[in-house]
Amino acid sequence: MTRLYKKTRKQVGLPPGTIVFLGEKRIEKTRITLIDYDETHFQEKIVENIEECFPFKDEPSVTWINIDGLHDVELIEKIGKHFDIHPLVMEDIVSVGQRPKMDNFDNYIFIVLKMLFYDERKNELQAEQVSLLVGKNYVISFQEREGDVFDPVRQRLRNQKGRILKQGADYLAYALLDICVDSYFSILEKVGDRMEFLDGAIVENPNPENLQEIQTMKREMIFLRKSVWPLREVISGLERLETDLIKESTDIYLRDVYDHTIQVIDTIEALRDMISGLLDIYMSSISNKMNEVMKVLTIIATIFIPITFIAGIYGMNFEFMPELKFQWAYPVVWCVILAVIVGMMTYFRRKKWL
Amino acid sequence: MTRLYKKTRKQVGLPPGTIVFLGEKRIEKTRITLIDYDETHFQEKIVENIEECFPFKDEPSVTWINIDGLHDVELIEKIGKHFDIHPLVMEDIVSVGQRPKMDNFDNYIFIVLKMLFYDERKNELQAEQVSLLVGKNYVISFQEREGDVFDPVRQRLRNQKGRILKQGADYLAYALLDICVDSYFSILEKVGDRMEFLDGAIVENPNPENLQEIQTMKREMIFLRKSVWPLREVISGLERLETDLIKESTDIYLRDVYDHTIQVIDTIEALRDMISGLLDIYMSSISNKMNEVMKVLTIIATIFIPITFIAGIYGMNFEFMPELKFQWAYPVVWCVILAVIVGMMTYFRRKKWL
Amino acid sequence: MTRLYKKTRKQVGLPPGTIVFLGEKRIEKTRITLIDYDETHFQEKIVENIEECFPFKDEPSVTWINIDGLHDVELIEKIGKHFDIHPLVMEDIVSVGQRPKMDNFDNYIFIVLKMLFYDERKNELQAEQVSLLVGKNYVISFQEREGDVFDPVRQRLRNQKGRILKQGADYLAYALLDICVDSYFSILEKVGDRMEFLDGAIVENPNPENLQEIQTMKREMIFLRKSVWPLREVISGLERLETDLIKESTDIYLRDVYDHTIQVIDTIEALRDMISGLLDIYMSSISNKMNEVMKVLTIIATIFIPITFIAGIYGMNFEFMPELKFQWAYPVVWCVILAVIVGMMTYFRRKKWL
Amino acid sequence: MTRLYKKTRKQVGLPPGTIVFLGEKRIEKTRITLIDYDETHFQEKIVENIEECFPFKDEPSVTWINIDGLHDVELIEKIGKHFDIHPLVMEDIVSVGQRPKMDNFDNYIFIVLKMLFYDERKNELQAEQVSLLVGKNYVISFQEREGDVFDPVRQRLRNQKGRILKQGADYLAYALLDICVDSYFSILEKVGDRMEFLDGAIVENPNPENLQEIQTMKREMIFLRKSVWPLREVISGLERLETDLIKESTDIYLRDVYDHTIQVIDTIEALRDMISGLLDIYMSSISNKMNEVMKVLTIIATIFIPITFIAGIYGMNFEFMPELKFQWAYPVVWCVILAVIVGMMTYFRRKKWL
Amino acid sequence: MTRLYKKTRKQVGLPPGTIVFLGEKRIEKTRITLIDYDETHFQEKIVENIEECFPFKDEPSVTWINIDGLHDVELIEKIGKHFDIHPLVMEDIVSVGQRPKMDNFDNYIFIVLKMLFYDERKNELQAEQVSLLVGKNYVISFQEREGDVFDPVRQRLRNQKGRILKQGADYLAYALLDICVDSYFSILEKVGDRMEFLDGAIVENPNPENLQEIQTMKREMIFLRKSVWPLREVISGLERLETDLIKESTDIYLRDVYDHTIQVIDTIEALRDMISGLLDIYMSSISNKMNEVMKVLTIIATIFIPITFIAGIYGMNFEFMPELKFQWAYPVVWCVILAVIVGMMTYFRRKKWL
Repeated sequence: MTRLYKKTRKQVGLPPGTIVFLGEKRIEKTRITLIDYDETHFQEKIVENIEECFPFKDEPSVTWINIDGLHDVELIEKIGKHFDIHPLVMEDIVSVGQRPKMDNFDNYIFIVLKMLFYDERKNELQAEQVSLLVGKNYVISFQEREGDVFDPVRQRLRNQKGRILKQGADYLAYALLDICVDSYFSILEKVGDRMEFLDGAIVENPNPENLQEIQTMKREMIFLRKSVWPLREVISGLERLETDLIKESTDIYLRDVYDHTIQVIDTIEALRDMISGLLDIYMSSISNKMNEVMKVLTIIATIFIPITFIAGIYGMNFEFMPELKFQWAYPVVWCVILAVIVGMMTYFRRKKWL
Repeated sequence: MTRLYKKTRKQVGLPPGTIVFLGEKRIEKTRITLIDYDETHFQEKIVENIEECFPFKDEPSVTWINIDGLHDVELIEKIGKHFDIHPLVMEDIVSVGQRPKMDNFDNYIFIVLKMLFYDERKNELQAEQVSLLVGKNYVISFQEREGDVFDPVRQRLRNQKGRILKQGADYLAYALLDICVDSYFSILEKVGDRMEFLDGAIVENPNPENLQEIQTMKREMIFLRKSVWPLREVISGLERLETDLIKESTDIYLRDVYDHTIQVIDTIEALRDMISGLLDIYMSSISNKMNEVMKVLTIIATIFIPITFIAGIYGMNFEFMPELKFQWAYPVVWCVILAVIVGMMTYFRRKKWL
Repeated sequence: MTRLYKKTRKQVGLPPGTIVFLGEKRIEKTRITLIDYDETHFQEKIVENIEECFPFKDEPSVTWINIDGLHDVELIEKIGKHFDIHPLVMEDIVSVGQRPKMDNFDNYIFIVLKMLFYDERKNELQAEQVSLLVGKNYVISFQEREGDVFDPVRQRLRNQKGRILKQGADYLAYALLDICVDSYFSILEKVGDRMEFLDGAIVENPNPENLQEIQTMKREMIFLRKSVWPLREVISGLERLETDLIKESTDIYLRDVYDHTIQVIDTIEALRDMISGLLDIYMSSISNKMNEVMKVLTIIATIFIPITFIAGIYGMNFEFMPELKFQWAYPVVWCVILAVIVGMMTYFRRKKWL
Repeated sequence: MTRLYKKTRKQVGLPPGTIVFLGEKRIEKTRITLIDYDETHFQEKIVENIEECFPFKDEPSVTWINIDGLHDVELIEKIGKHFDIHPLVMEDIVSVGQRPKMDNFDNYIFIVLKMLFYDERKNELQAEQVSLLVGKNYVISFQEREGDVFDPVRQRLRNQKGRILKQGADYLAYALLDICVDSYFSILEKVGDRMEFLDGAIVENPNPENLQEIQTMKREMIFLRKSVWPLREVISGLERLETDLIKESTDIYLRDVYDHTIQVIDTIEALRDMISGLLDIYMSSISNKMNEVMKVLTIIATIFIPITFIAGIYGMNFEFMPELKFQWAYPVVWCVILAVIVGMMTYFRRKKWL
Repeated sequence: MTRLYKKTRKQVGLPPGTIVFLGEKRIEKTRITLIDYDETHFQEKIVENIEECFPFKDEPSVTWINIDGLHDVELIEKIGKHFDIHPLVMEDIVSVGQRPKMDNFDNYIFIVLKMLFYDERKNELQAEQVSLLVGKNYVISFQEREGDVFDPVRQRLRNQKGRILKQGADYLAYALLDICVDSYFSILEKVGDRMEFLDGAIVENPNPENLQEIQTMKREMIFLRKSVWPLREVISGLERLETDLIKESTDIYLRDVYDHTIQVIDTIEALRDMISGLLDIYMSSISNKMNEVMKVLTIIATIFIPITFIAGIYGMNFEFMPELKFQWAYPVVWCVILAVIVGMMTYFRRKKWL
């Protein structure tokens, strides 16, 4: 989770609007995919030069240009120029530590959000910044690397049926938002599973790794919260936007995504509460273990210390110790010792220590 | 309480409005009950085919169609089509992990809320999603399974007297909401009882199961909170709604449910505070027990260690130890030992350890 | 404090507006007191039948009808009918677990609040629900049992002087509200006194009863908070009410009660903070005691264990132990033992353990 | 800090507007000081009878009447009558436990605030209530006792230069408010100093008195918070007031006091956070000490217990123990003992316990 | 972090608008730098007398006057007089403990903010107050000492290209704000690095210095929060300002700074959460260590105490102890002792203590 505070902004002092990519380079070569569709046709291709996409800007069909990889600054500048994007927006696209946000311009809407993955191998949450430029009849999406959660949308388009083909670019943008928010649910599910597993493990046998795990989950929840809270404003902002770019019929769908976002936030808050409960369990399990250790020590010590004393007494070398001469002294001492042991045992049993 | 974060949403990436039931199938066969009434007549029957209900839509009498079981997707689609329900609403009805919410459409109002049960056998809180579609003269309610808290309303209808018969579908919807909120009170009462029981148990003899129980209650309260908080907005939303579907005379009843909801929320918050108090008691009970164990150990050890030392001294085998030859040495040693014991005892008594 | 979550609502499912008293019956027979006054006359009597009070409704003088005991449902229904009170209001009057609230109707204002007592014998906070119906020239007050905090108001009326006689029913209602809020201050004072006492006791000698007491106080504060917070809204609501029932000249007095309510809330919050401070003191006192116990154990053990070892050495029975034959061996061993004791003591003193 | 919840309100049930002083009587005789000034003249005198001040009410010059001591109810009633003050205001002036507040009347503004002192001798925070009545050309200030923070203002007036002489009564009121808020800063500074001192002391050698001190500081911060938070509303209320009594040119000065108040609040919140940090340090210092004690015990015990056992073995009196006869047995036993000691030491060093 | 509560305000009671510098004098001689530019020319010089700068006020080119050092009160008064600055503003400029704020006047905007440094040598956060006066075509910046984060802006101006030259004084002010906020990111990064380092160190080997470090970081975060939170209002205030001094084209840039500020605040909150997590780890590491110490003690004690007792028994000097005479008694005792050791070991292994 080092990403939480790692450098994600441009070098301090560069003029605003300077497009400098400072994230990790997560893909070798920028990959551009073009999808163009309307109710009657569908076209999908991987393009080599971004210029191939430009003619689609002015066609009435919906065009979705997806860019994987943000390090090719020149390419991004070309897009900015052709689509008439504000330099600050271009800067935000390549600055990968952005907070989710939405900005409304005359001819396009700019949306930043987080796509989240759960890396099963590293048992670690990973994030990728996704930027959407939503124009009249195009959507341009920027991602840090290949691989995303958008495949089901692509599949729906390829099938060439369903509501999505009849709707405009705003509906496509909604579909992409929706699928991102949907994917948060599966993240939360995984966090929930790990939490349930931890819960059992801690009660059984608490150890410092559990604490590490709890802390990691806590930080992941902090990170998730940072990523999802602002999304709420983004989506309710989209709903309330007075713009031609979003048709009224799309509003109800945005309302639906909004509801899901609230649900995600609710669940995050609930999980946070439960994680702090885990910490309580951990702490008290440690206390319990310590208690048990102390009890064993106390039982052993309090039983043997007195009888060792008795043995010590008759180990003394005084010349005038009448007991030493008695024939039955030794067995009597053993009886006394047994009596002490039995007495102690009874006492502990009454105290419920045994 | 695994339900808190379990998968309750459709498979990621399905187009919005796809009606896929993903909850547990809690009833074998969907059961449809129809109640139709006005001031002068009352009719109740179990119908086999949903089509039988359709003619009632356009009659002036109030019709209440109750569906138990959400897995029969086809049936639900038929209802959606006949009553002209938005596909997203239909999707919400079968997605059983919804947050309570209210949506206003031209010809109906859509309400989602949680019906809560306390499963006495499993000692566990259980939830079921209830969706209401409130139209001009009909209410359609969707539940996950048979068995609900609505029986008193049915009984009042069957009695064929009382205010409810003279009022419209909005009043029926209010009555259903009211009875759900009322049932929350008995849940809280049970939680309160368990808390009181736990409180005594913990002070008597704290053990890790108590902690488990506290955590379970804490999670239940988190879940309750998630279920009831949004209800507040739902009901105040209904009150403020500008629609013909809710008559002005019903507003004061909604205001009453609203007051009860606030009261439930207040009690939940108070119970949360008290549960965190339980945790404090538990933690300090553990500390107290440890303290007691330590005291026993310390008392035994500090009394016997010095006198064992004395015995050890006269167990030494030096040839030139004058005391060993003295006739009264042995009784004197015993006196010293007794003096040490009495001294220690006095010290501990003064320290209030005994 | 079981009252906090005990059943206080009507049986689930009764139709709204059903008047069923479910509280504890706290008085044998309902007692009705009538006070009627204006600037020139004053009349006070205990009436047997509520019907005797009805003629006063339409007279211009101010009438105060006080009902002690809520179990006589028939009586309450009569009042409801004669004064034209909404059924839901009548239900609220007898449902004794209400949250403080205010409802405005055309011809009367309905106010619910809590009257609090401190039961000195049981050392326990007790609450009683008081409902006020404020009409054009009457106030009807409903209480659960005899005995209230209103006596000073009655006395002022009986004295037949002061501002109260010249003012209307709204001023009388204000006077009753004011005296309730005033009585909260003395409750808080008592809580404060107990807290101060506890504070000293805990530092002196913490024991589990202290913790119980802290928890009880915490719950009382939770209950107080629940009772007073909503009152704030109630009174500010009265101030802002657009109604003829409250004269403008009364507004400044309501503002005064409002200020006092805020002050009560402030003090409750401060006391809550201080109670959580008490818990910290308790916990750390326990820790301190444990620490002290440990120190005693450690000092005794670390002093005697080494010297017992020395004694043990010379208790060995080897044939060839030259020291055993030395004449000065025994005194030398004593010197070593003393040196060990002095050395340990010095060490502990330097560590500030002694 | 008992003041936090001590009785500061009139006897429950007195009619509103009754002027009864219930605070501690902090001054023998009420002292009245009159200052009258305008741009051209300045007059300051101690007056015996309040009536001497009355003529100044209608003169155009600014008059500041300062009353030290609130127990002379008759005097205060005279002022109330002459300056036409509402009875509730007069009651608030003598009720010394008021929350800071501001009330706007037609011909005057009423302001209540807290003047805070740090009693160096008792090492204790003390508070005094100050009430201001701000009229067209007069300010009347009421204090509980002699001695205040207003001297610099008096000095500025006496110097007969500066902006204050040209401004009206509103500016004088501002100056008094400003100096009160300024004095809070020095209080916070002292709290900060004590905190820094405590911080060092706790890490060095934590003891229960530190905890007491932390709790005292915590309560002082609670009290400060209660005194300063409402002041924010008071001052922003003054700024927004639509009245002729405050000239527009004074607004920027009020804005300045407002900024300072916010700064005080910020600092209080920061100090509260830091005090809770102190508690963490204290708790963990106690834990650390316990840990250290345990380590000493464990080291001593684990070293000596095994070697004492070895000595015990050869203290046995069996007839057939071949080692007892060996010539080198005794030195060998010593070697074994030394080996055990060295082994243990190494183990502890590796564990970083030494 | 003593600065958090140290005296930073003028002596209590000075008249408002008195310019008295009370901060640390951090620079020997006040240093004045003048930069004047427009699209066609650029001029930079260090001036000796502030009067040299005055003619630039009325020229159309943008003038940036930077003052390092605030102790030269006379100089600051001259600026105030020439640029017609309100005395309270001048006072705020030299009072170095201001909260970030923005005040709008007719002919200029006054902005206060904090410039933060991370002193690598002292491992300590340091702050400096920066005040900006933004007029029609000038910006005057006041700093406590030489050295700032503004160099990149200067460099951009010197390069004589880029957007900044074509824009007015408002854009310059924006650029200065932007670079300050940017510099907060690197502070947070450093805090994050230290936190990561601490995290590892605490789990490895917790010691009281770690706690000190955690507390220091906590206080730094409190301080950071105090410095950054109000900045949010400042910038959103600038955006919403209705003034000619800020051109509409600058608004989008202010929006960008605003977004960055929110991002800083988010990160601060996340770091605060993580620091409190560190404390949990520290506390539980201490507990774990104690636990480990206790286990070692318990294992050693419980193994040796019983076998020492056995040795003690046969050290008794009774005349009639048959075992002492048996030939195989001694080896048998050894076997018993070994059996006890093995039994204990097995028990501890089963308990997972070994």
